[in-house]
Amino acid sequence: MTLLSICYENGKLKILNVLLLPHKSIYEEINSVEDAWKAIKEMKVRGAPMIAIVGCLSVAVELRKENFDDIEGFQEFMNKNLRYLITARPTAVNMSKSAKDLIKLVDNLIEEKHSLEKLKSRVLETIEQMLPDDITDNKQLSDYGAKHILSNSESNKITILTHCNTGSLATAGYGTALGVVRALHETSNLEEAYCTETRPYNQGARLTAYEFVHDKIPSTLICDSMVGLLMDTKKVSAVVVGADRVARNGDTANKIGTYQIAVLAKHHGIPFYVAAPVTCHDTDIHEGNSIVIEERPHHELIKIAGVKIAPEGMKCWNPAFDITPHDLITGGIITEHGVFTPEKLHEIHQRKKE
Amino acid sequence: MTLLSICYENGKLKILNVLLLPHKSIYEEINSVEDAWKAIKEMKVRGAPMIAIVGCLSVAVELRKENFDDIEGFQEFMNKNLRYLITARPTAVNMSKSAKDLIKLVDNLIEEKHSLEKLKSRVLETIEQMLPDDITDNKQLSDYGAKHILSNSESNKITILTHCNTGSLATAGYGTALGVVRALHETSNLEEAYCTETRPYNQGARLTAYEFVHDKIPSTLICDSMVGLLMDTKKVSAVVVGADRVARNGDTANKIGTYQIAVLAKHHGIPFYVAAPVTCHDTDIHEGNSIVIEERPHHELIKIAGVKIAPEGMKCWNPAFDITPHDLITGGIITEHGVFTPEKLHEIHQRKKE
Repeated sequence: MTLLSICYENGKLKILNVLLLPHKSIYEEINSVEDAWKAIKEMKVRGAPMIAIVGCLSVAVELRKENFDDIEGFQEFMNKNLRYLITARPTAVNMSKSAKDLIKLVDNLIEEKHSLEKLKSRVLETIEQMLPDDITDNKQLSDYGAKHILSNSESNKITILTHCNTGSLATAGYGTALGVVRALHETSNLEEAYCTETRPYNQGARLTAYEFVHDKIPSTLICDSMVGLLMDTKKVSAVVVGADRVARNGDTANKIGTYQIAVLAKHHGIPFYVAAPVTCHDTDIHEGNSIVIEERPHHELIKIAGVKIAPEGMKCWNPAFDITPHDLITGGIITEHGVFTPEKLHEIHQRKKE
Repeated sequence: MTLLSICYENGKLKILNVLLLPHKSIYEEINSVEDAWKAIKEMKVRGAPMIAIVGCLSVAVELRKENFDDIEGFQEFMNKNLRYLITARPTAVNMSKSAKDLIKLVDNLIEEKHSLEKLKSRVLETIEQMLPDDITDNKQLSDYGAKHILSNSESNKITILTHCNTGSLATAGYGTALGVVRALHETSNLEEAYCTETRPYNQGARLTAYEFVHDKIPSTLICDSMVGLLMDTKKVSAVVVGADRVARNGDTANKIGTYQIAVLAKHHGIPFYVAAPVTCHDTDIHEGNSIVIEERPHHELIKIAGVKIAPEGMKCWNPAFDITPHDLITGGIITEHGVFTPEKLHEIHQRKKE
């Protein structure tokens, strides 16, 4: 069975604590908004969609237990908790977007004079639908991606390379780029999935490898330094990566190392795909150049799991992501609405506005 | 002062134990051939030239203390110890080559009827010259490389990228690719030296970074995944790497990751240099294709300093080096006789035969 990092049933919420992976797989109960706030703050859950879903579901957990005296009490409860959840990691845009949507929903329902009972059930329904909806979108995207890669390949057995983690541990479930790999595996079209370890934070070695082992997907871990030789010697059919942000022209910000994999793919004539649900498309940004690259602390390069691997006093450069220009995205941009070349992206942005 | 990993004076030999770097800098006395054998076996010293020099110098240490009854006793001592030293790491070709040369020297001197005194002094002289000779060759090579890079650059302040470790900790002293960086620094022509951490064995983070800090060379450590972004944003003047073996046509086997750096350098229009003293040139091999790539144990990818960084049961691919085709070596091949384009390499091979 596919790995699940969030389990929700009848008002019971559990999350897989990714901080303990790959050493221990422990699901922790989230019994309150406070529990969720702490789990998000401590990064037991990660990834913008995940944070929003866990945050909102923790509100549902409390809603199912709580009895309200009146509509004002209910509205106050919603506002207070949703605003509080945003503060756990203020930069994660999805939580604040979901909070805004839910507060607006409550306001509208009150304006329409619905009963307290009705209010509560409509809000619960909306929150509880977030998890299955996100998984459905990811599956749809993955299915489009897998079919496109197969149609581009001479073989029906695909060897694929991915970078970082974009699976069940970074999304509500199934994944984006990793979802494409899962979809290929489910239809028996996967020969081998290679994943880079993704230095310096090792999301590939810790998380993607964990998902592969869990789901019994034929897979091999390599170092980031081995991508060139892999492409030169192992008949890689395609590369598929995720995205932090896709600009209007298709330039894509993603985990550091993505750009050079795209250059190497181009050099070896291997199609390069970006799997990015529409929530990652930022139509306010025309091109990648205007995205500022975050630089992270030096110690992430110098220590692994608390062990020092470089000498005292050595300076480091630690950019967290890079920009892949759209002309290197030779396979296409995979979304829940289909696969688009960067030039055709405007079609989806049109659709988003409608 | 430049870092020294071998100190030899008046029959006293000390080596820097690289196994303890970068945490501790401890010089250990080598008082006998047995001490040297163990240090080589345990990899306290590494690099083919280093192994040969430490091995032979340990013979000199004993020679200076020993009194021989007759020439036969001397010859037996030499044969026995040199043959024993080869067994410490049989694949390192330099030790067996040096052993063969020294045994032949003794045979010739005996044939020429020299006295025991003369025999001993000629052998000591030969062995004790190995260390300064190797350093002189490296300095000559480094000087040629630095001048070539400067002549190719618009600026007299060079930003350079190197991979793996090719410095005082891998050679008798000064280094090859790292020697070029040192030479640029000595003439105040170095803006910044970047080194990759060089996964999976981290020679860049552990050893090259250690040499940079020790010699106060302006330098920055990056992950192997950051090379593309570095080249795209930091005005890199040149890349310089070492070589395990250079084929007749210039194809170069070197540490895994070298090939993809060469592809990235080509994509960004950055000159790519290989620093390779003639001892690394293998004229028996016409092209890189015929070099077999060694695959090393999986655990090197899965553990760092004893700490597990990937899940149980994950398969790995761990090739130790890769081949950079000669057409990607756009700067040239730097030797102690000058800098050659791959097409002109035959000139040096001619010279080697003479």
